[in-house]
Amino acid sequence: MSTGTVSTQIHLASRPTGWPTAENFRTVRVDLPNLAPGQVRVENSHISVDPYMRGRMNDVRSYVPPFAVGEVMTGGAVGEVVASAAEELPVGTTVLHQQGWRDVAQGDASDFTAVQPVPGVPASAFLGVLGMTGLTAWVGLTTIASFRPGDTVFVSGAAGAVGSVVGQIARLLGAKRVIGSAGSAEKVRLLTERYGFDAAFNYKDAPVREQLPAHAPDGVDVYFDNVGGDHLEAALDVMNDDGRAALCGAISQYNATGAAPGPDNLGNLVTRRLTLRGFIVGHHLDHATEYRERMGAWLRDGAVATDETVIEGIDHAVDGFLAMMRGENVGKMLIRTR
Amino acid sequence: MSTGTVSTQIHLASRPTGWPTAENFRTVRVDLPNLAPGQVRVENSHISVDPYMRGRMNDVRSYVPPFAVGEVMTGGAVGEVVASAAEELPVGTTVLHQQGWRDVAQGDASDFTAVQPVPGVPASAFLGVLGMTGLTAWVGLTTIASFRPGDTVFVSGAAGAVGSVVGQIARLLGAKRVIGSAGSAEKVRLLTERYGFDAAFNYKDAPVREQLPAHAPDGVDVYFDNVGGDHLEAALDVMNDDGRAALCGAISQYNATGAAPGPDNLGNLVTRRLTLRGFIVGHHLDHATEYRERMGAWLRDGAVATDETVIEGIDHAVDGFLAMMRGENVGKMLIRTR
Repeated sequence: MSTGTVSTQIHLASRPTGWPTAENFRTVRVDLPNLAPGQVRVENSHISVDPYMRGRMNDVRSYVPPFAVGEVMTGGAVGEVVASAAEELPVGTTVLHQQGWRDVAQGDASDFTAVQPVPGVPASAFLGVLGMTGLTAWVGLTTIASFRPGDTVFVSGAAGAVGSVVGQIARLLGAKRVIGSAGSAEKVRLLTERYGFDAAFNYKDAPVREQLPAHAPDGVDVYFDNVGGDHLEAALDVMNDDGRAALCGAISQYNATGAAPGPDNLGNLVTRRLTLRGFIVGHHLDHATEYRERMGAWLRDGAVATDETVIEGIDHAVDGFLAMMRGENVGKMLIRTR
Repeated sequence: MSTGTVSTQIHLASRPTGWPTAENFRTVRVDLPNLAPGQVRVENSHISVDPYMRGRMNDVRSYVPPFAVGEVMTGGAVGEVVASAAEELPVGTTVLHQQGWRDVAQGDASDFTAVQPVPGVPASAFLGVLGMTGLTAWVGLTTIASFRPGDTVFVSGAAGAVGSVVGQIARLLGAKRVIGSAGSAEKVRLLTERYGFDAAFNYKDAPVREQLPAHAPDGVDVYFDNVGGDHLEAALDVMNDDGRAALCGAISQYNATGAAPGPDNLGNLVTRRLTLRGFIVGHHLDHATEYRERMGAWLRDGAVATDETVIEGIDHAVDGFLAMMRGENVGKMLIRTR
């Protein structure tokens, strides 16, 4: 048993309209009670900030319930057990959990999952390439979009946590050509020089619809959509017959205050026999074991490069979340909390 | 061998912009040469006018090549062999072919397919419920939208050749609820009284988005889209998690002169894990044998009701096509040519 300690937590104070601001959050310091039997206390090393969290700030029907106002921002986090009243999770165990934006988490051991670190790979990878974002890339590409060797793949938001993994998996699985979009010259350079994309462009340089065709002279068979809006429309312009789009997210839309019209070329779905399929990784967790084995091997082989953008301190969790929404991260955006 | 005769044909004279007019077509009378060995001459009884033909009038990339200006409007037709220089198709054989808008067709026997009439079912059914439109309904519902017993199905353009068959097949396969939209009170009445839909509404009475929810209190699992535009948007509002839409056509868009924006709620594809899949029946002809057997049995049992709207005379083919595009038909729109 450990004595009580303080947990610094970020609560949702009010629901944002449009872009969230600091006023929508509140930092709360909570005195933790002593551990009850079966509980553990975890000092988080990293917490995850993800685009889908913006949707949870709204009070609308979605695939995960909205965050409650006045409650902590839950989500993925990784840390180490520092006090334990549960045999199965002794002090020193690295664990993954969903208690989110706090520096110290506490609860029943069943709420925490022990993870086996991969040699040479930091534990934070369980929030990224070995976690939900990596699995999202894998499921979206292989299951939702039914990727086949020889396909040309276009990935939007390609320098992000999901997109950078999608492109590299596509290459490893035998894509004919991998094209990515990102929001800065630096990211575009990373895509081709570090992540092995065949072509990349900065979507801020000119409308996507104008830029994409030159990079996809033979069209696109698989589109992995993290952005929505103009990107989806541009992809539909160049998709080949029987093309498939995995719709993972639409970060371009999340802070919109009104409904934006959709692509003006959905007619291509019929004439080219296209499939658009949205998905939520949480419904495909049966792929997790296979994925972690394959990705673990690729990481050990140095076949996949990953990056993290790390913001220091739980007090900067909101800043990190907003920076991620603005696209200021390369790879997985994380908050370091110890 | 027969002596020469005259074939009255409708040619595409120029490409329409927006709604076609009579000026875009030309009636041409052609003296047919004597039959060459291996050829047959067919007097058509019915020719088919279909929404997809509007797309072929444009000079754009699509799944079938555009009609050539100055050439006959090709498409489905059914008739009887009246002269034959081909053993395999003797005089009197009922045949299906793609020579389209003409009263007399002539060519190699291999261009004509003998059909076995179903007792009590007119040969014109091979252009409708036993032909491509029926197969479109079957493939779209069962393969593209992966219909499962217990699904709630919404069909737009439900009184048309495809839609009326979709709704009836869905009922026969165990739908929980079948909802249809159509463009007149008379059609709405037909949907519930003749075709067995559980609910129907007139999309001209009020925006689809306002009307559909009341008819789909438990949401929609499968949407069969013949209309596009507002209908697709309204369907996306009410689709249940894991819902599937088969996109067959978008008749609301075919005569548009500019690109119309798409639905403003494509975000639902991600949050509800929806699939939109376009298809072209010509790529699913491997289902034709199974379909004709099943539909043939349903027709013999009186389990499926079909209607035809018949315009008399090849000289009125254009009128019939335009009337169909305006939604003036119930069931399959046909031109009777003998």
